[in-house]
This record gives sequence, structure tokens and C-alpha cells, in this order.
Amino acid sequence: MTALEFLDYASVFIFALTGALTASRAQLDLIGFAFLANLTAVGGGTIRDLLLDRNPIFWIDAPSFILVTTFAAAVVFATAHLFESRQRALLWLDALALSVAVAAGAGVALSLGHSPIIVAIMGAVTGTMGGLLRDVVANELPLALKQGELYVTAAFAGAIAALTTTQLTDNPLAALAACTLVTLTLRAGSIAFGWRLPVYKSRPPKQ
Amino acid sequence: MTALEFLDYASVFIFALTGALTASRAQLDLIGFAFLANLTAVGGGTIRDLLLDRNPIFWIDAPSFILVTTFAAAVVFATAHLFESRQRALLWLDALALSVAVAAGAGVALSLGHSPIIVAIMGAVTGTMGGLLRDVVANELPLALKQGELYVTAAFAGAIAALTTTQLTDNPLAALAACTLVTLTLRAGSIAFGWRLPVYKSRPPKQ
Amino acid sequence: MTALEFLDYASVFIFALTGALTASRAQLDLIGFAFLANLTAVGGGTIRDLLLDRNPIFWIDAPSFILVTTFAAAVVFATAHLFESRQRALLWLDALALSVAVAAGAGVALSLGHSPIIVAIMGAVTGTMGGLLRDVVANELPLALKQGELYVTAAFAGAIAALTTTQLTDNPLAALAACTLVTLTLRAGSIAFGWRLPVYKSRPPKQ
Repeated sequence: MTALEFLDYASVFIFALTGALTASRAQLDLIGFAFLANLTAVGGGTIRDLLLDRNPIFWIDAPSFILVTTFAAAVVFATAHLFESRQRALLWLDALALSVAVAAGAGVALSLGHSPIIVAIMGAVTGTMGGLLRDVVANELPLALKQGELYVTAAFAGAIAALTTTQLTDNPLAALAACTLVTLTLRAGSIAFGWRLPVYKSRPPKQ
Repeated sequence: MTALEFLDYASVFIFALTGALTASRAQLDLIGFAFLANLTAVGGGTIRDLLLDRNPIFWIDAPSFILVTTFAAAVVFATAHLFESRQRALLWLDALALSVAVAAGAGVALSLGHSPIIVAIMGAVTGTMGGLLRDVVANELPLALKQGELYVTAAFAGAIAALTTTQLTDNPLAALAACTLVTLTLRAGSIAFGWRLPVYKSRPPKQ
Repeated sequence: MTALEFLDYASVFIFALTGALTASRAQLDLIGFAFLANLTAVGGGTIRDLLLDRNPIFWIDAPSFILVTTFAAAVVFATAHLFESRQRALLWLDALALSVAVAAGAGVALSLGHSPIIVAIMGAVTGTMGGLLRDVVANELPLALKQGELYVTAAFAGAIAALTTTQLTDNPLAALAACTLVTLTLRAGSIAFGWRLPVYKSRPPKQ
């Protein structure tokens, strides 16, 4: 198993946990858990593969991904009542999955020889689209659109870190590590300490 | 026309009726009816074809599908006021369309020689994604995510029935019939009698 | 740059403005603006390219599209507070983008030699899907589904105008111009004067 394959499995597993946690909040049955887990887990990579015309799609090529997501769904179905705050668990797992998925997505685009801008976009797409599908289908405002969260920003910064590291070292492992680290640091700082960029304000603050 | 083609047209027609019924609840005009009818009717099969890299997409190959959906939209536009409960009509038509679409989706994946797990997933994708698109676009919680409904479960069970029958008989028609029957029975039982799997409960019931 | 390429860039730029205006209503940061701007601007054309199996997708082939959308996002981030009504600006810009995108989408399908029905659908898909993605992701009811708006109708009428003009003149420029003009006229009439088709009414009017 290459580092890129490992990242793919790791991000799929962790995103599946977040999908299953969303299913637990909607009080679905086990198959409902598996459905949302799969949509979340393979959604981003599927959109990446469709956009890049990779055939077959990664999980059709290796259906073991589906076993991984279904296992994650079963784990959450059995244990979600143990979490003190499922919303908080979801936020942190989503941050972890995002970091790993951005690296996996950027890595795939890099290995196909795409231009830097496409590499950065594919990292962001792979990282953000699974969670976006999860939230849209569950009829919630996507995390990516929550005010004052470093989300797409974290994904994009991670992808740029991957690109920069590739220029400097030509070591794909270092690039993937830098990407994960930068994305996770920014996203974690946003969750834990409220780090953010200036947001658009519709009116200037009153005196 | 093969059995598989017939199933495709039947599921497209019935899903189009459900899309048009959703349009009637939103009080759209005739073109709005046709838009939602088409999105619902060809959505699941289009996602299946994109995932399996089938070219051209089924309705681009045979635009007569679009005539069928548009006819369905016109029928509902003219007659929806006759239904006593459009929500109830939508539920039952959706159940019927789901059953037929799962069989059509699984049948396509079987005929392309995919592995059992991919066949089951393509059945579920073809069955559920059109209705999911309809509900997401209409800003409603998808039927597939309603608590205590056998929906994805029914689709998945139908696909497994198709796989089992194929192993036993090597008769594609029997497989399609078994698939439709199992999906429809489970879904109808869920609507009419409240059949369900155990759902995740966030707290244990109080004494 | 051909007329078709110009239309592509123009519709991408204007749709990006509408995506960024939606981001301003959600009070996102600059990267959030760029994210929604890109999703809106390239969403319709991306779905068109996936459906028609055009490889690579137009913006992967020409990443300068992404620069255009990001520039549009930055412009709105800097100036949105100057608009008296951002909702009204969004409506009118969306109407303009729709008109141009329908022409671009129909033009691509025409140039690939597709049948009239597919040309009309690709025009409508390219025109409406970007705005649909924008509204669905922002958890709003899509403009295309708002009661009593000529939206999909305007798109579809424009595509039919393109087809008719092509039959009459064999001049692609005239077809694109007719398409844009018809779509924009109908959509603008709907916004400004309340033009509409008869909508479905769930009950007959009381005496």
C-alpha cells in the first residue's frame, strides 16, 4: 500500500464516521448510517475522479473502500451514545478527515501532472465535497459555508503547502505531510481558538 | 425493447410523476413541472452512468426518455387537482419507481459484469438518487433520510435479491422480478404498516 | 477568442458575481467568496461537460477561468457594501448570466452535432445548474423553483431560439445572439413586470 492509498483509506474511514454521526442525529437505522457514511466518505473523491476523468472511480476499482465505510457506520451505530457531544465529535473528526482528504486529492492531481492551480482545486474539492454532500442531503447549512470558520481556507492552504513542498523537495511524502499538517492546524485553530479571516460585513460597525 | 429497456422507461415515467407532484406542491408552471420531472426521473440513472463511465448517458443516447418525462409532467399538471392527497400519491408512486429503478440499475451493472458489491450499490444509487435530487432541490428532507422509513434498506435488499437470483437461476428476467418484488414489498410495508429496522436512539428510553 | 469562448468567459464572470453576492449575504471570508463564486460560475458548464463526456472539463483545460471567477469574488468582497440591495443586484446579474450561459451551453452542444432536444437541454442545464448549486449549497430555495418566475422557461425558450435561428441562417453568431436576447427578455420581464405562465393551483379559486 502506497502512502497515497493509505491517505485515501484513512480519509474515507474518518469521513464515514462523520457521516454516520450525522445519521445518528437524524436517528436513522443501520442502513441509513451506511448510506450517509458512504455518501460522505467517497463523495469528494468521486467528484475528483469524475472531474479528472479517472476510470474507474476509485471505489469501483477497489470496493474494499465500501467495506471500510460500512464498518465505520457500524462502529458509530454501536457506540454513538457513548459520545458526550456528538456535534463536537463530528466537528473534530471532520477536521481530521478534511486534512487527510485534501492531501489525498492534491496527491492524485500531482501524480497526474496537473498544473498547480488544478492541484490546489482538486485538493480542496476532495476535502470539502464529501462533507458538503453530507450536509446538503441532511438539509443543514454546510460547514464550508458557516460564517467565520476556516474551512475552505484551510483546505486551500494545505493544498498550497503540498505544492510548495513539492517544489522544494520533490518528496511526495513530505508534500502530503505538509498538506495534512497545514490544513489540520488551521482548521483546529478555527474550531478551538476561533481563528478566522476578516469576513464580509454587510454594514460598517456603528460608533 | 428488452426487459431492461422497459424497466428503464417505466421507472423514468413513474419518477417523473413524483417530480411533477413535487412541482405541483410548489405551484410551478408547466415548464417547472417538466424540469423537476426530468431531474427526478433521469437523475439516478445519470449518476449511475457517470459513475460507470457509460457513454453516452442513457437519455442522450435515447432522447425519447425526455418525451416520456415531459408527457408525465403534462399529465400531472392537468390532473393533480384530482388527487385527494398528493403527498400520499407521491409516496406510493415513489415506492413503485424506486422498486423498478433499483432493478434497472442493478441490471445494468450486472450486464457490465461488475462485482456483487458494485451491482448492489448501482441498484441503490439508481433507485435513490433521483428522488434525493428532487427533495434536495425542493429544499425538503429526502425520503431516504426520513426516520424509520425502509428506503435505502428496501433498495439494497432488492439489489441483493437480484444478485441471489442471478446466482440461482442465471435468468436475468427472474432477477429483475425478484428485485422489484423485494424492494416494493419492503417499501410498501414501511409506508402502510410502519415496518422498520431498529433505529439509533440518542438516549435509552426512560423507565 | 471565438464568440463561444467569449460567452463562456462572460457567463462565468457574471455567475461568479452572483455566487460572491450570496457569500456576502452569508458573511463569509474572501476564500468563502471564491468558493461560492467558483461553484456557481463553473457548476453549470461542468455538469454539461460531464454529461457530454467532454474531456478535459472546460476549466481544467483552461484554468484562466478560475482566475476570472476569483477576480470576480474579490471585486464583490471589496464593493458589495456599495449595493443598495444585494438581493436585487443578485437577481439581475443572475438573469444576465443565465442568458449568456444558455447560449454558451446550447452553442457547445450544437457544435458537437447533437440533436435539437439535447441542444435545448444542454442550454438549460448550463444556464440553470450553476445557480441551482449556489442556492442548494446556501440552503435556499433555488430561483429555478420559485413560484411564478420565468426561469427554466426563459432558458428553454432561449435554447429553442438558438435552434430556430440555426435552421434559418446557419450563422452561429446569430443563433447565440437570438438565444441570449430571448432568455434575457423573458427573464427580465418576469423580474420587472411579473410576466409568468399559468401556474398549477392546488384548488380552484373560490367564487
